[in-house]
Amino acid sequence: MSNEQIHAIVQDSLIGYQYLQKISLAERASLMHAIADEIEALGDELIQAAHAESALPLPRLQGEKGRTVNQWRSYANAVKTGIYAEARIDKGDGAAKADIRKYNKGIGPVAVFGASNFPFAFSTAGGDTASAVGAGCSVIFKEHPGHPNTSKIMAGAIAQGIAKFGAPAAVFGYVEGAAHAVGEALVLHPAVKAVAFTGSFRGGKALFDLGAQRQEPIPVFAEMGSVNPVFALPNYLAENLEAFATQYVGSLTLGVGQFCTNPGLLIAVKSEALDAFKERLETEVKKVAEATMLHEGIAQAYAQAKGKLSSQPDVALIAEGLSSDSSQAVAALYSTSATTFLANAVLGEEVFGPTGLLIECDDEAQLIAVLQALGGQLTITFAATVADIQQQADLFALAQEKCGRLLFNGMPTGVEVVYAMQHGGPFPSTTDSRFTSVGPDAVKRFLRPLSFQNWPNEFLPLELQDENPLAIERVVDNNRTV
Amino acid sequence: MSNEQIHAIVQDSLIGYQYLQKISLAERASLMHAIADEIEALGDELIQAAHAESALPLPRLQGEKGRTVNQWRSYANAVKTGIYAEARIDKGDGAAKADIRKYNKGIGPVAVFGASNFPFAFSTAGGDTASAVGAGCSVIFKEHPGHPNTSKIMAGAIAQGIAKFGAPAAVFGYVEGAAHAVGEALVLHPAVKAVAFTGSFRGGKALFDLGAQRQEPIPVFAEMGSVNPVFALPNYLAENLEAFATQYVGSLTLGVGQFCTNPGLLIAVKSEALDAFKERLETEVKKVAEATMLHEGIAQAYAQAKGKLSSQPDVALIAEGLSSDSSQAVAALYSTSATTFLANAVLGEEVFGPTGLLIECDDEAQLIAVLQALGGQLTITFAATVADIQQQADLFALAQEKCGRLLFNGMPTGVEVVYAMQHGGPFPSTTDSRFTSVGPDAVKRFLRPLSFQNWPNEFLPLELQDENPLAIERVVDNNRTV
Repeated sequence: MSNEQIHAIVQDSLIGYQYLQKISLAERASLMHAIADEIEALGDELIQAAHAESALPLPRLQGEKGRTVNQWRSYANAVKTGIYAEARIDKGDGAAKADIRKYNKGIGPVAVFGASNFPFAFSTAGGDTASAVGAGCSVIFKEHPGHPNTSKIMAGAIAQGIAKFGAPAAVFGYVEGAAHAVGEALVLHPAVKAVAFTGSFRGGKALFDLGAQRQEPIPVFAEMGSVNPVFALPNYLAENLEAFATQYVGSLTLGVGQFCTNPGLLIAVKSEALDAFKERLETEVKKVAEATMLHEGIAQAYAQAKGKLSSQPDVALIAEGLSSDSSQAVAALYSTSATTFLANAVLGEEVFGPTGLLIECDDEAQLIAVLQALGGQLTITFAATVADIQQQADLFALAQEKCGRLLFNGMPTGVEVVYAMQHGGPFPSTTDSRFTSVGPDAVKRFLRPLSFQNWPNEFLPLELQDENPLAIERVVDNNRTV
Repeated sequence: MSNEQIHAIVQDSLIGYQYLQKISLAERASLMHAIADEIEALGDELIQAAHAESALPLPRLQGEKGRTVNQWRSYANAVKTGIYAEARIDKGDGAAKADIRKYNKGIGPVAVFGASNFPFAFSTAGGDTASAVGAGCSVIFKEHPGHPNTSKIMAGAIAQGIAKFGAPAAVFGYVEGAAHAVGEALVLHPAVKAVAFTGSFRGGKALFDLGAQRQEPIPVFAEMGSVNPVFALPNYLAENLEAFATQYVGSLTLGVGQFCTNPGLLIAVKSEALDAFKERLETEVKKVAEATMLHEGIAQAYAQAKGKLSSQPDVALIAEGLSSDSSQAVAALYSTSATTFLANAVLGEEVFGPTGLLIECDDEAQLIAVLQALGGQLTITFAATVADIQQQADLFALAQEKCGRLLFNGMPTGVEVVYAMQHGGPFPSTTDSRFTSVGPDAVKRFLRPLSFQNWPNEFLPLELQDENPLAIERVVDNNRTV
């Protein structure tokens, strides 16, 4: 698309934004359910298009479609409660002390960039779009070059939902074009007030820099992935090595390893149990079938990153998965010593795909040294018993500074769409650790507070009127009330 | 201070941060009250030091000291309620659906830069320091070159409060040195995770850029002031011109005009009432006594900015205040047409001091054009009747997109320290419209969420334990509960 076309779409988006600012929270929630209805009603055409464009298996796509619908509905329900309005009322004293009332409103039109690895849940009608609309912001979506047909079908469902509800079409704008210049024009447009992105570090950081360097800087929420270290602690490993090897390799290779939360690093202290564990890992990895990645570009990048990792000094192969066809991605697990890892930053880089690295530490101090050397992470997992955590208090404390989600056992793949989810973490896993991109709280990214001082009741937004017509929780004169 | 000294102070600050992360919300609140006690106990030495360094009158300084104590206490009380923990618990199903719990923790050590115009409330022990500690973050304070003695006395009180409470001294670090390099070293230190600043656009934007360009970008909350337009609407003006002239000139010249919320622009439609109003404004401005500004540098900048404004084409003087001594700041009010204003960006620049500009519009459409031409504002004020607002729905809607606080009558100077206060606004009034720097909600700037998945109760922070030992409000399985 030309800059003129993009400009026209963004200008139009202001009409959608103004509309969303005027309707009530309940109406906004109804609009979101109307969009969810249309997505839900999409049939085989959508699934087949996504399958053709992403190589993702049909059951996975069916599941992802359900998740996408659930995102719209659960965010709508949360928005309707008024939890994100954060209404505060200080009534003053009718004299010198003013009546001041504050609520959160939408920040303005939001530019959303889709991710390749979730063509539904993190793309056109994904969580970023749903949470921006939930915040009362119009969206201008930048089509992902990896799945344009899927994207257009989904955009059609959104447009249908908007039309059936009776909202202006400009609530959702759609921008085509694979060139970087298209995305840049969008981020640099003065009417765009925030950006959401999920993808590579390079892409996300470039958008962040553009946003920060605008004449009017804007927030850019880029989720850029991480290596999601898993610490296999001694007591746990001794007791669970078989089941844990199966679980770890399963998570590492799930979805051909194409998740931001893929557990790329496995870290343990040398022991007899670890040697036995390595044997189990070897067995498990060898069972993993080769598989097709999302796109040719991703497959090539995977092969390159895997090759780079395997060619580093003192990195040994534990095992590779099954392989017969060179166009397919083959799983692999490598090992190295903590001393080697600490001396070579390449070993901490994310390999997007089903390849992991086991780091063998001489002692528990090296567990901490390895974690200290890592950048911010979406997740950190402890495969641990209660006794392990008691013995590793410093590691546990440090892990809380390094990630957005901390797991006790379990595996980081599988990001539940719930209030308590934090999908985000310190840089470089995201550009802003203060927000999540999954769960209803994702709405918060696109809000800003506005105070009204001494206004007659009739001019206040419903959230702040005396009668509390929306029946939302508010802080009134320092007390929480409904 | 040398870079080595700054480095040592920041490294030390991590100890203070770790301590604050470990104590409970109630203990954190007690620490804040202990600091407030010491500030409250400071006597004439503090007031005299500030008077000597800032030329601010003694009663104002007494009031500001009280406000500063109130900030610590009210933020402490808010923190103790758990409102900023935003605890969310999703208990899962004991099987595939995980138990996930999220709360907000401190983001890390915070660098705070003091403002010249509030040597207590926005400086060493000011709102930024109080809200950072309230978030569980240690502070490294950069001394303001305008009031080093005041600053050191205040730092002594903070240190005393920390010591009496039994917390490590490293909760509050203190960095001296007027050179820009000192502030830069602080913002660029990898252990610093956020920055708070109140002051000029140039200073704030420079810090913001430094923060964004770090290897690990960090949020920089810079409050940089604005021109705070006041729209005097027709019906109101016709009915209230005498009282309103007194009120406007009082606010414009309060504290020698040295407030971020100083109402520098007055905007009205030409009418007979406006002519009469101008006469009243003239009378009022002529009564304003000359006064000493905070520092020589500010006085010089004021004289320059005023000279620049007065020398623009088609800008007329309405009146100047009393003047006898050339070292003193003299109040002034100018007028121009909306057409002239719209053609000359210089006229929209902030003049820090007691100078205002009346913009005379040909019609109501020009009111909107003038507002559209302005950047983001801390405040916008309507001097209006109910009928005025009904007649100016578009202006009212646009104003909500342009500011952080919208006033119906009253004057923007006077920023109350309450939950409902939004002191912050779209760029360039601040670098981040999503947060306030006044009121307990200022604490939010320094928090980030952390999720715990499937953790045994004993390892969870108190905010998230089953028994809810802090008795805070939480969202449990989608319902708000206490």
